[in-house]
Amino acid sequence: MSQDDLQRSGFKERTRIDEARERLLERVASHDRTERVPLASADGRTLATRVTAPKPVPGYDRAAMDGYAVRAEDTFGASDRSPNLLREGEDVGPETAVRVHTGSELPEGADAVVMIEQVERVGEELEVGDGVAEGENVGPVGEDVAEGQTLYEPGHRVRPSDLGLLKSVGLTEVEVSERPTVAVIPTGEELVQSDPEPGEVIETNGLTASRLADRWGGRPTYRDVVTDDREALRAAIQRDLTKDLIVTTGGSSVGERDLIPEVVDEIGEVLVHGVALKPGHPVALGVVEETPVLMLPGYPVACIVNAVQFLRPALKRAGGMPCEDHPTTEATLERKIRSEPGVRTFARVKVDRGGNETTALPTRVSGSGVLSSVALADGWVVVSEDREGIAEGETVAVEDWEWSA
Amino acid sequence: MSQDDLQRSGFKERTRIDEARERLLERVASHDRTERVPLASADGRTLATRVTAPKPVPGYDRAAMDGYAVRAEDTFGASDRSPNLLREGEDVGPETAVRVHTGSELPEGADAVVMIEQVERVGEELEVGDGVAEGENVGPVGEDVAEGQTLYEPGHRVRPSDLGLLKSVGLTEVEVSERPTVAVIPTGEELVQSDPEPGEVIETNGLTASRLADRWGGRPTYRDVVTDDREALRAAIQRDLTKDLIVTTGGSSVGERDLIPEVVDEIGEVLVHGVALKPGHPVALGVVEETPVLMLPGYPVACIVNAVQFLRPALKRAGGMPCEDHPTTEATLERKIRSEPGVRTFARVKVDRGGNETTALPTRVSGSGVLSSVALADGWVVVSEDREGIAEGETVAVEDWEWSA
Repeated sequence: MSQDDLQRSGFKERTRIDEARERLLERVASHDRTERVPLASADGRTLATRVTAPKPVPGYDRAAMDGYAVRAEDTFGASDRSPNLLREGEDVGPETAVRVHTGSELPEGADAVVMIEQVERVGEELEVGDGVAEGENVGPVGEDVAEGQTLYEPGHRVRPSDLGLLKSVGLTEVEVSERPTVAVIPTGEELVQSDPEPGEVIETNGLTASRLADRWGGRPTYRDVVTDDREALRAAIQRDLTKDLIVTTGGSSVGERDLIPEVVDEIGEVLVHGVALKPGHPVALGVVEETPVLMLPGYPVACIVNAVQFLRPALKRAGGMPCEDHPTTEATLERKIRSEPGVRTFARVKVDRGGNETTALPTRVSGSGVLSSVALADGWVVVSEDREGIAEGETVAVEDWEWSA
Repeated sequence: MSQDDLQRSGFKERTRIDEARERLLERVASHDRTERVPLASADGRTLATRVTAPKPVPGYDRAAMDGYAVRAEDTFGASDRSPNLLREGEDVGPETAVRVHTGSELPEGADAVVMIEQVERVGEELEVGDGVAEGENVGPVGEDVAEGQTLYEPGHRVRPSDLGLLKSVGLTEVEVSERPTVAVIPTGEELVQSDPEPGEVIETNGLTASRLADRWGGRPTYRDVVTDDREALRAAIQRDLTKDLIVTTGGSSVGERDLIPEVVDEIGEVLVHGVALKPGHPVALGVVEETPVLMLPGYPVACIVNAVQFLRPALKRAGGMPCEDHPTTEATLERKIRSEPGVRTFARVKVDRGGNETTALPTRVSGSGVLSSVALADGWVVVSEDREGIAEGETVAVEDWEWSA
């Protein structure tokens, strides 16, 4: 009997993962706080409002080619064998052309540009060997972006190329959603920050969950360890009810030292306790005074799996941020993965791109406590509830969950 | 004739992209500077040295189950129908068991744990209903990580789960490669930072390239605009020869105002000028006093395509960082993409996940100057040199180049 099997025996039922997530997200409000940030600080942030172009780009008619700005009518009928004759001047006028470079403003009176290759200079005269239509080789006002054009909808996550576009329309700052705040509270009387004595364990879940929250766009506060004591746990949760979310790690199962679900039940509401996922079914989800409380299990791998399944979408929802799928890598499974029907299973794998084909080898799977099985893996394969394992040789999609923002 | 076609006419030959990248990377040295950072600041950084575990995890034999620590021999032959009788004590000894919880230290003298379910307490006595072997339900020292075990090789990019593992073995900081430094110098007499008059253009390439360099692990310095003047350009490049890399934007083609390749040729060496890629063939790559100088074209899309193709791998090489493939999304092409054999083409697309299948629709492709065609796209489809376009309905891989680190 594995640790998972044993602990599961304490749960009357386990909620399906999608339903558990839905129950949680129903109780996560978008915080609606916004701030204005300069463009250089906006990379990766989420736009809070629709952005339209206050100015067109380009802001003036411009030459799209090196050549001569002309009145198109003065070139009509021109050909190599019978060129039209123009002269070069300071201003464009009847039969008078002005030299222009790509991107320079189209001089007043011009309505087209003849490419430099089509013009031969003969003494004072310009022989134009081809006719151009009105507007030819001209980039009109607003060619790239029209004034008032919608560029981005609220919820768009800003990328470096967006910054260029935003700056080009004359914007210097944008209104973005504030990063949602999240308190990360590690719990467990056995936890220490360093130099463990026998029986003690170094705290790692809070650190990992904090860094994940940061990557996912949250603003984490990594709290000190709280021991397994009802009073202390209650006080710790109550202190952080001003945050958008609270995450606890450890003490979320049904043993005698698993006090957090009970504490949350006393001062709030437990929405879900026990989820049909592996590793990590002893997770609990609740709400205290409208602040969602995610009670993640203390086994490191179980904690991480649950953080990805519940903390990430909750943070995204709280901050009005898009929750995109993880990037995946297709690979051939090198060894079968076992799983139990009705339980969504996350099997950690090492990916090897070395050979003729990309392969995925499951890492040690015994025990959800083995931190190295996730930290030394490249991602995981998700086995859905309706399957009973995946056979060796099948093509699988490895989720690179740790690099997605 | 498009802008690309016109400018190309000035290039005698265009180097294939892979060869151009190779010539550049041969001249990019790994800087070898390292720094020690605390774990909480190490996320996303690249390890400079091999990391081994200074301590085993766990650091002591521990109970893997809730139950009773025993001498295994005292349980031999036990069964439900004929349980062995033990007593509970403070220390484990002959026929004396000690109550333990999952994760607690195995008491001296014990070599196994009997699960709580297998023990019935009858008055002072414990009825053990099943025999356990030596080591059963015990997590031995080093079960998760052995002392001295190699955890990571140099060049590994640190993820949140790695931080947990590193902390669990007693490390508080790690040695990482310094972020490579890169000067980003926008050039062009038409460029202004704001409020453009007719004929002026707002600088965007330098901003975008800086933020990309930052995302890719570099430490960018975004310089003021330098005008198209040999002296000024030379001084600007010479000032930044202390950086690991120099990037210029604009002025990299073969027109009369394209001075940077000539300047680099005077004070250093031009390795490549003109590459068989679209959009963005007028790129130049050079070296001045061992500092690579990447001369990116001034058209925004051309600048971005070249930054991804050349700046990203150069930064990774300079900083000893892994250069991973971009994540891709499979999609059905909604409209054909044209390309020219012998030229690698980057076609910007919008991805639509809404319908039954994921589709990719090419955005406006006319002109490499149209910033909105990349900023409003979701990625690009790469058409290799040996193909002549991609037909509507084909399955393509959309590179989400902007979200990869």
